[in-house]
Amino acid sequence: MQSATAFMVREAAQRIRPLARRTPVVTSDEADKQTGIRLFFKCENLQRGGAFKIRGASNLILSLPPGIAERGVVAFSSGNHAQATAIAAKHVGAPATIVMPEDAPRSKMQPTRDLGAEIVTYNRLREDREAIAARILAETGASLVPPFDHPLIIAGQGTATLELLDDVPDLDALLVCVGGGGLIAGSATIAKSIRPGIRIFGVEPELANDTWQSFAAGERVTIPPPETIADGLRSPVPGKVTFPIIRSHVESILLVSESEIRAAMRFLLEYAKLVVEPSGAVAFAAALFGKLPPGIRNAGVILSGGNVDFEMLTSL
Amino acid sequence: MQSATAFMVREAAQRIRPLARRTPVVTSDEADKQTGIRLFFKCENLQRGGAFKIRGASNLILSLPPGIAERGVVAFSSGNHAQATAIAAKHVGAPATIVMPEDAPRSKMQPTRDLGAEIVTYNRLREDREAIAARILAETGASLVPPFDHPLIIAGQGTATLELLDDVPDLDALLVCVGGGGLIAGSATIAKSIRPGIRIFGVEPELANDTWQSFAAGERVTIPPPETIADGLRSPVPGKVTFPIIRSHVESILLVSESEIRAAMRFLLEYAKLVVEPSGAVAFAAALFGKLPPGIRNAGVILSGGNVDFEMLTSL
Repeated sequence: MQSATAFMVREAAQRIRPLARRTPVVTSDEADKQTGIRLFFKCENLQRGGAFKIRGASNLILSLPPGIAERGVVAFSSGNHAQATAIAAKHVGAPATIVMPEDAPRSKMQPTRDLGAEIVTYNRLREDREAIAARILAETGASLVPPFDHPLIIAGQGTATLELLDDVPDLDALLVCVGGGGLIAGSATIAKSIRPGIRIFGVEPELANDTWQSFAAGERVTIPPPETIADGLRSPVPGKVTFPIIRSHVESILLVSESEIRAAMRFLLEYAKLVVEPSGAVAFAAALFGKLPPGIRNAGVILSGGNVDFEMLTSL
Repeated sequence: MQSATAFMVREAAQRIRPLARRTPVVTSDEADKQTGIRLFFKCENLQRGGAFKIRGASNLILSLPPGIAERGVVAFSSGNHAQATAIAAKHVGAPATIVMPEDAPRSKMQPTRDLGAEIVTYNRLREDREAIAARILAETGASLVPPFDHPLIIAGQGTATLELLDDVPDLDALLVCVGGGGLIAGSATIAKSIRPGIRIFGVEPELANDTWQSFAAGERVTIPPPETIADGLRSPVPGKVTFPIIRSHVESILLVSESEIRAAMRFLLEYAKLVVEPSGAVAFAAALFGKLPPGIRNAGVILSGGNVDFEMLTSL
């Protein structure tokens, strides 16, 4: 299967310009003090749609041949990819159908509906979302917008790190959360191209450690549906396209507990003044709780999204 | 008394570079949709110390003659100016004493202590903070760092708007909260110099409408100590230096209710993913609740600070 290349990330950066924002990089004295590392937060929580997902979805949708987009697009997603697909579909005038778990947070479901997408729900434990999506594709002739396992999706997600390294060239490490692996695969591809010596760390919740297990086994391992608070990282297995990229570029996969994720979210709220969703706080949690090896001075941390129910925030 | 000039704002921008961050400007599709205006949020909540105040305090402290800074600096402040003074004092090695109301939020008091400043508390309703500060100044030979009514403070605060107009040159309006008036006086001074046609609106809480009253009366009016949730805007009278600048540059002072301030904070949390304190949300509240005159397409909104107790956030 075709992989993603640094050139494709650069092409994506041009292509997605009408849809994705160039998000800011911010710093926090308190975070630096607590971790002993100078941290540069790439604020994808401030991205259009509230997460980095618009980068990959718009890169794929804007690449669809003329005549194809009009038949519609279909995505299966726990939420942020859904909203991103809906935004990009609306931009090109394509009908969007989103296959979403019935227990997805309200903060992710409603905005997707508001964008005019049709939502089809399923039960995460009993039903197969890919089968549902396949049926819709067969019926409509629509195009699938996969959440992570596609070279154009991976290349699109990598644009966040392209911008980050443009703003802060001298990073010696990069921390990226890992769900299906699209964000870290794209990030690693472009980061290693620009700065071969950069050390790349994936971060997963302990409860959703499929990539950590796969990394140890040297092959893709599937785990039971994970129940982590980080709802964007519940993919039970790394992708066919993403995993080889992760294996070749990532130094190690770090794990964080549920309480460490919550504490990282609260820290970002209180000190960095940023609303970050659980999945978005996972990479920072690894830095905050000392999971990194020594010798790192300047680290980029991707805050991947900010879509969190207000009720969840108050529960911190 | 000497006023602030656009040249002084430009000088300040150079001077404060070692201490103040260049904060990002962010947008929110939902905010644009709700208001019908394209809004550009200048994120001073992401500033060092959590508010714009570092700009003015560091401009003054970095301007102190050699030998004077060592005698120390004194500030009286409801919080953000205190922290800013402590940060800038620490940077130049000057001892800092902060005179602070005893009911200031914990989120503002503790970081100031952590920076090594000495805190002297007083009762806002019964004691005169200026008299307390004057006594300390006489005893120590320290320099006063006033919260707003000084040309160097005003010029420093104006640097936020200098950066905003550099990033977004075609603003036709600017919304700025008004406490003592330092931020809006500096912002108006530089904005009118760069873009004479720009329309400038001050925004105050209804409960702290001293500048609104003064604007109507054509002279400085003093009100009883205000009890607004926007603790950074409780100054009971506009400054001697700030008020003439406000009169000459500001189109009107808009008023927002306490519930409008709370709703604006919650909106910024939910949709813009930003933690903004009540004072910091006041300018946006005016846009969100339709207080602006028609004809405005692109407006800059200064989110002045983000220092809010977690308990207050959960009460929204």
